[in-house]
Amino acid sequence: MSFPFSKQEAEALEAELLEDYRFGKQQLIEILGHSCATAVTKVYPLKTLPKKQPTILIICGPEQNGAIGLVCARNLRAFDYEPTIFYPKKSIDTVYKDLTIQCEKMDIPFLSYLPTEVQLINDAYNLVVDAVLGVEEDIGELKEPWATILATLKQIKIPIISLDIPSGWDVEAGESEGINPEVLISFSAPKACAIHFSGKHHFIAGRFLPYDIQKKFELNLPKYPGTECVVEL
Amino acid sequence: MSFPFSKQEAEALEAELLEDYRFGKQQLIEILGHSCATAVTKVYPLKTLPKKQPTILIICGPEQNGAIGLVCARNLRAFDYEPTIFYPKKSIDTVYKDLTIQCEKMDIPFLSYLPTEVQLINDAYNLVVDAVLGVEEDIGELKEPWATILATLKQIKIPIISLDIPSGWDVEAGESEGINPEVLISFSAPKACAIHFSGKHHFIAGRFLPYDIQKKFELNLPKYPGTECVVEL
Repeated sequence: MSFPFSKQEAEALEAELLEDYRFGKQQLIEILGHSCATAVTKVYPLKTLPKKQPTILIICGPEQNGAIGLVCARNLRAFDYEPTIFYPKKSIDTVYKDLTIQCEKMDIPFLSYLPTEVQLINDAYNLVVDAVLGVEEDIGELKEPWATILATLKQIKIPIISLDIPSGWDVEAGESEGINPEVLISFSAPKACAIHFSGKHHFIAGRFLPYDIQKKFELNLPKYPGTECVVEL
Repeated sequence: MSFPFSKQEAEALEAELLEDYRFGKQQLIEILGHSCATAVTKVYPLKTLPKKQPTILIICGPEQNGAIGLVCARNLRAFDYEPTIFYPKKSIDTVYKDLTIQCEKMDIPFLSYLPTEVQLINDAYNLVVDAVLGVEEDIGELKEPWATILATLKQIKIPIISLDIPSGWDVEAGESEGINPEVLISFSAPKACAIHFSGKHHFIAGRFLPYDIQKKFELNLPKYPGTECVVEL
């Protein structure tokens, strides 16, 4: 399978889903967040986690990737994990706000700051879900608190699961000095940077993707097994 | 497990989900429609269908049950079934309209009328999904085309899968003269009428239901296995 998917193509595909196929933002975020939580359970079943408590830290960025992280957290909670969310820049978008309230009302804890002492994170959590930056962000203009968060993520020793784009990587060029996730979950199709992914598990989420779109963008996706919402490459 | 859930309680629960927990209509419809499609695949795997083509007829009503039927159809298509939709009164609600467009753009056929000759339905389809009437409808005031559709459903010989409330049943009293589904998929919790269900498989869909709501309404739900979105009673 080739990874020819540029930032421009990813944006064109999303526009087609939203405008022509009339998929809703809320709908896509829900599907993808649920798929991410499912992928996490496949690689890290509850019983295999090294810590006594099934803790997972989910770091959510300001845009859609962060919103998908919130849904992932809520679904992990339903799967009996213990997610904790760090969401430093809460969006004013109503859809994202509602997803935040759902997590809060389900008693998922939110951190008010991320420890700079990385060992505290390694000790407290089994895994980190990187829902920080996605296709829409321009890495060249990275502001605080994201630069500091990325610096922390680079030093973390517990496994990182990155959603769509490992944070800090360029969508196309990747980033040799960036974070090194153990799991990558590509949305709809792998972006060009995924060719540089050297972790253990690469999933695709987005079974809803209409066949005509797959054909138009020449995606050549693998077949999803049974009723699975993710497929591993 | 007892089935004490009245119409009033079902409505109070939904109001709490929408207003307090800020779940979105689009979000809930997507989750439930996906769950229904998954339940269908569990009882009727592709390879066990009697007809050569994996055809399923999905009859959608004017309200939320019908919208969930549309999402169920779309997900069944993604699971390699061949759904056909009959949706005689298309809603003007934007969320429902968008779900219709998604099905149309994915080349799921829509019937312009339902054959009155029941044998034609028995011959053409393996199953019928009854997404006609839900909690919100008042059975006493049943208008056309719903009365005729119900009369047809009562004569059908192929298995019927009913969503939440078998169409034509009263939410609480049930209906001894009504349709007789082989599968019932209750949303969140079984409604009182479910005690009269005499089919083979009764599922609950709604794993997203927050624990505090389950406790408040004394739902006493069974545990969903693994990452499953439905649980069979």
